[in-house]
Amino acid sequence: MAKRPTALNMADLASRAGVSIATVSRALSGAPGVSSQTRQRIKDLAQDLSYTVSPDAARLARGSNGRIAVVTPDVAHWFYAAMLGGIVTALHGTDLDVLLYEVKDERERRRFFEDLPARRQVDALILVALPISDDERRRLDLMDVTVVMAGGVLGEHPHVRIDDVTAGRQAATQLVRAGHRRIAMLNSSGTWSLEYAAPSARLQGFTQALEAAGLEVHPELIVHRRWGSHGGVEGMSDLLSLPEPPTAVVTFSDEVAFGALRTLRRAGVAVPHTLSVVGIDDHHLADMFDLTTVHQPVAQQGAEAGRLAQQILQQGDVSTPHITLPTHLVARGTSGPPPQ
Amino acid sequence: MAKRPTALNMADLASRAGVSIATVSRALSGAPGVSSQTRQRIKDLAQDLSYTVSPDAARLARGSNGRIAVVTPDVAHWFYAAMLGGIVTALHGTDLDVLLYEVKDERERRRFFEDLPARRQVDALILVALPISDDERRRLDLMDVTVVMAGGVLGEHPHVRIDDVTAGRQAATQLVRAGHRRIAMLNSSGTWSLEYAAPSARLQGFTQALEAAGLEVHPELIVHRRWGSHGGVEGMSDLLSLPEPPTAVVTFSDEVAFGALRTLRRAGVAVPHTLSVVGIDDHHLADMFDLTTVHQPVAQQGAEAGRLAQQILQQGDVSTPHITLPTHLVARGTSGPPPQ
Repeated sequence: MAKRPTALNMADLASRAGVSIATVSRALSGAPGVSSQTRQRIKDLAQDLSYTVSPDAARLARGSNGRIAVVTPDVAHWFYAAMLGGIVTALHGTDLDVLLYEVKDERERRRFFEDLPARRQVDALILVALPISDDERRRLDLMDVTVVMAGGVLGEHPHVRIDDVTAGRQAATQLVRAGHRRIAMLNSSGTWSLEYAAPSARLQGFTQALEAAGLEVHPELIVHRRWGSHGGVEGMSDLLSLPEPPTAVVTFSDEVAFGALRTLRRAGVAVPHTLSVVGIDDHHLADMFDLTTVHQPVAQQGAEAGRLAQQILQQGDVSTPHITLPTHLVARGTSGPPPQ
Repeated sequence: MAKRPTALNMADLASRAGVSIATVSRALSGAPGVSSQTRQRIKDLAQDLSYTVSPDAARLARGSNGRIAVVTPDVAHWFYAAMLGGIVTALHGTDLDVLLYEVKDERERRRFFEDLPARRQVDALILVALPISDDERRRLDLMDVTVVMAGGVLGEHPHVRIDDVTAGRQAATQLVRAGHRRIAMLNSSGTWSLEYAAPSARLQGFTQALEAAGLEVHPELIVHRRWGSHGGVEGMSDLLSLPEPPTAVVTFSDEVAFGALRTLRRAGVAVPHTLSVVGIDDHHLADMFDLTTVHQPVAQQGAEAGRLAQQILQQGDVSTPHITLPTHLVARGTSGPPPQ
């Protein structure tokens, strides 16, 4: 064979030969610890594996099957959908197809990683902002498959992301510069036991901006609610019921801001005259809410991740495996100076 | 072989044998018009094609490769993303994988359908609200592959959809019952030369509701703008500048309504006191806008389409191939009686 089979094919071989993947690896690499009979049997099987006329098997023979698996916690959510759109666009016109997997919770994620070597046959994995455990990370490292993280960091694997500390700082700085002294942060917390890094990083940036301006970070103004718009509805309601409400709020995301704006609209609180709101994301509907926000390039992160995966498959390597894309403030109608 | 190869494999065979798909079909079915030498050569190739130890090829041998292709015009758009989420959820736990294809315009769609038999190897296609030409439809009919339409109708192929006439009628009826006499429709038109059926169907339902109440359909109150929220921004602006603006508006979709609401907010028009707005969709952010709308079950349409495809692959048939899911009005804060 021109090329050693990948670990994914090794799993098939091992299963068919009734031996461990390690034995297959030793047999094919010529390492000791395998009887000559077993070695020959595995080599014959490997030979069979590479012989076929189907396009799939031809790809297998050259150690490639032309498929990239994209794994995301939520296909329908705008953020992951936009990432996915970027990946698909980047791979359009290449001969790579996208296999899509949704793993909604930890049980599904664990099962996915367990099934991966035996069942799926993919050249590369793109994880879309998927937090994974150390054990799963080690499992990925053992497999001979390209792994790219989009929207986060995964050890030394290639990744594309934004700097969430900077994003939090940019949002808060806008309000500090407008003259606000009493600024809240309506942050999010997840339902995964593995924490996403973004909430603590954005809060860190928020804190940096206030401290740089000599402003106090009031503990009662730092609120954590569940992800999404309903968390914003509730968190804003709590902030409004404080003895001394804030004059401005940074939200973890635009969706949280949308919820906060609904609460303010229903409560008859004028935005931005009585209270300013600044989001983070630049959601595609942010301008329909006139929301001031920090723009992050979501589709572009997906596209860069797709390109990284493709280049690694094609060239075996990339010169810049770790990409951080810039964010910037987009001033719209929900932020202004504090009330007199 | 236990099973005749599918048309997809026939294309591979034909390409490898240097003959037409029709010749392959005749050779394998025993029909006349093929020399015995060619027939034998094709049979040998077919035999090779079914012989291999890889899981992919084992599936090929039983006429299946365990993959469903989902084809959508826009991966990132909430409607298609929600459909896709439903499909993925329905197929979760089966041994079917989802291959994802985005075809943004007619050129890409044409190329996709041209490449389909030769390049892709899928058991079934789910088209997500993708309008296709008669020629492409004939091409699909010729291929021995299961095709399911989600969010629309495609000849006699299995489909899952809503009744757009009913949806339009439900939206308008809410405003008629509230006492409005001057009701506008802010409709959408696409950029495809192939028209989506939804705009004309929703307008038809709107018209039915007004006529049933003995109300006039004023031509100047029927406005067509491009898809999406910015179409709503522009269309609402045009309606407001009429000598006699409407007291209520039905929009093609919730996104159009979001745009209309932004125009009304910026113009200082009180909603619903001066003007009522009713959307269609029940977008996941509709409640953040307090939008009254007609709910359509988007993820469920995807899920039903996924189940149809899976059942057809498993059982060869389904008892109910054409499913129309019900829609219903969700009353929120943007609709009320007309101003006195």
